[in-house]
Amino acid sequence: MIERICIVGAGVIGSLFAGHLASVCDVSILTRRREHADALNREGLRVSGRSERQARVAATDDPAALEPFDVAIVATKASGLRPAAASLQGRFPDATVMTVLNGIGAEEIVREHGPWPIVSAVTFMSGTRHTDTHVEYILDTETWLGPYETTPFERVRELADTIVACGLRAEALPDLRPAQWSKLIFNAAVNPVAAMTGLPHDPHFSAEHEPTDLGHLVHGLVDEGKAVATAAGIELHDDPWEMNVLATRRGSAHYPSMLEDVDARRETEIDLITGSLLREAERTGVPVPLHAALHALIRGKEASWEQDASVRRQATPTGGQ
Amino acid sequence: MIERICIVGAGVIGSLFAGHLASVCDVSILTRRREHADALNREGLRVSGRSERQARVAATDDPAALEPFDVAIVATKASGLRPAAASLQGRFPDATVMTVLNGIGAEEIVREHGPWPIVSAVTFMSGTRHTDTHVEYILDTETWLGPYETTPFERVRELADTIVACGLRAEALPDLRPAQWSKLIFNAAVNPVAAMTGLPHDPHFSAEHEPTDLGHLVHGLVDEGKAVATAAGIELHDDPWEMNVLATRRGSAHYPSMLEDVDARRETEIDLITGSLLREAERTGVPVPLHAALHALIRGKEASWEQDASVRRQATPTGGQ
Repeated sequence: MIERICIVGAGVIGSLFAGHLASVCDVSILTRRREHADALNREGLRVSGRSERQARVAATDDPAALEPFDVAIVATKASGLRPAAASLQGRFPDATVMTVLNGIGAEEIVREHGPWPIVSAVTFMSGTRHTDTHVEYILDTETWLGPYETTPFERVRELADTIVACGLRAEALPDLRPAQWSKLIFNAAVNPVAAMTGLPHDPHFSAEHEPTDLGHLVHGLVDEGKAVATAAGIELHDDPWEMNVLATRRGSAHYPSMLEDVDARRETEIDLITGSLLREAERTGVPVPLHAALHALIRGKEASWEQDASVRRQATPTGGQ
Repeated sequence: MIERICIVGAGVIGSLFAGHLASVCDVSILTRRREHADALNREGLRVSGRSERQARVAATDDPAALEPFDVAIVATKASGLRPAAASLQGRFPDATVMTVLNGIGAEEIVREHGPWPIVSAVTFMSGTRHTDTHVEYILDTETWLGPYETTPFERVRELADTIVACGLRAEALPDLRPAQWSKLIFNAAVNPVAAMTGLPHDPHFSAEHEPTDLGHLVHGLVDEGKAVATAAGIELHDDPWEMNVLATRRGSAHYPSMLEDVDARRETEIDLITGSLLREAERTGVPVPLHAALHALIRGKEASWEQDASVRRQATPTGGQ
């Protein structure tokens, strides 16, 4: 019986879980910022949009102050994963830890910090964070859960049932990797291209009429990713190219998080998304030159932010080259 | 004897030629904008920096008003080349036309519009355009000239001598293509990467220590370009990778023009630079997936500018994907 859930990281996804789960469990939240925890304790957490909730939560930025929990849901950004896992180290070894991050490999990082049974998850939900205590629920799509290592499937199912009971959509799968890899390849093909071009995920991403259309690049990235999946023995749950085509045919173009990160000059999740594909490619000996190119370009973009305006002004201006 | 030179396109390079050549020839200038021509006629053209000049020039935006000339130097941006060549059509068939644009293929486009003897040129000069009538001369590097088709080498040499006589650096080469291709491959490797990342041409472009360092991508682009050159029967004048390494070791980082174009949201020269390499690659059957990827990314970036802020705000915001 799951009665106490700790949400680690209260970004969009963490807040959506916390805001809903509080209607069926005791929810605690571990935040990075003290003032975020204070605001949550004072005002609670509001969900608007696809559902309306006003949740009471117990938030803290101090891992030592956490009350015991049955399940921790780690929903940080890639850059916050290691500190989050480290902050749980030594705490509540009987609890189950669920990871719901982009990319693959989050489970290994959690495992380095404790012996908890781990549940892998990918989510297709999306939302907008309006304030520290208000999140809007936009796409009410599913979260898929699966066992990691020897975690009993029964525990996965129990957690999925709890998530469904609180009003979100979830499904327990005996093997999550096919879905995780489908989403990984989709994200690795779409996110860096959006971040580089400044385009939201619109019909450019599936256009293949002209030889220089962007869809060829996205398709090439998908094909490289599929070759890695095949070499890793993964049979994909969904074809990432079809996911891409379908998504670009929706009415409104989705604004991928890596594009938001680049616009805000925040460190991107390239290492968890493209990086994990590059690591699997190296392990399996599959060449992925296009993913390597996008990885290098995004890292170059991040490096450019370190060069402030004054350095840029000192750069030699040019004409003709 | 070259006595009358018409400069077509008064950007940085055109202005540097006009400002210097006016000390040894009659110089006319064909501009795109009327007010640019008016300002040049009223104020003349000032060169500062590596040399100081105050040139008297006869400018017009009306091709029909051009006085006869012995040589036309076409120094437009890629996007201005076709209209410029069309504006010369039917005029002064005894004149020689020199093209000094990025990439390769400018000569063919000029040829479509007239039977003039053509001189190919690449320039390594650079400068900054301060106003319509003031250009700063920054890098006083060479311009290389060579015959196109059956243009006599003697005419190339005469033009190079005239350029040297006016205070610029120039050299006549019996075959320009090795130099043109070296510069093309260098530009195709450096310009789009700078434009995508926002980095000036700094040591990131030659870094190959870590597997994800940007130098690997630049090196891969250079290697693809060299394979195309080899297939096209060109023996390169300089190794583009060495050009890249040397340039990134100069004290101050160069700010490539395509990065300036992207920052200013101007259409880039991708089609003349990377595009001409892609066309040669297709003709010779050499695969160039990295150049195709950069071409698609730059085109995607250009397409993103068509989406104004309001469209972007309507795009579905997200968390978690």
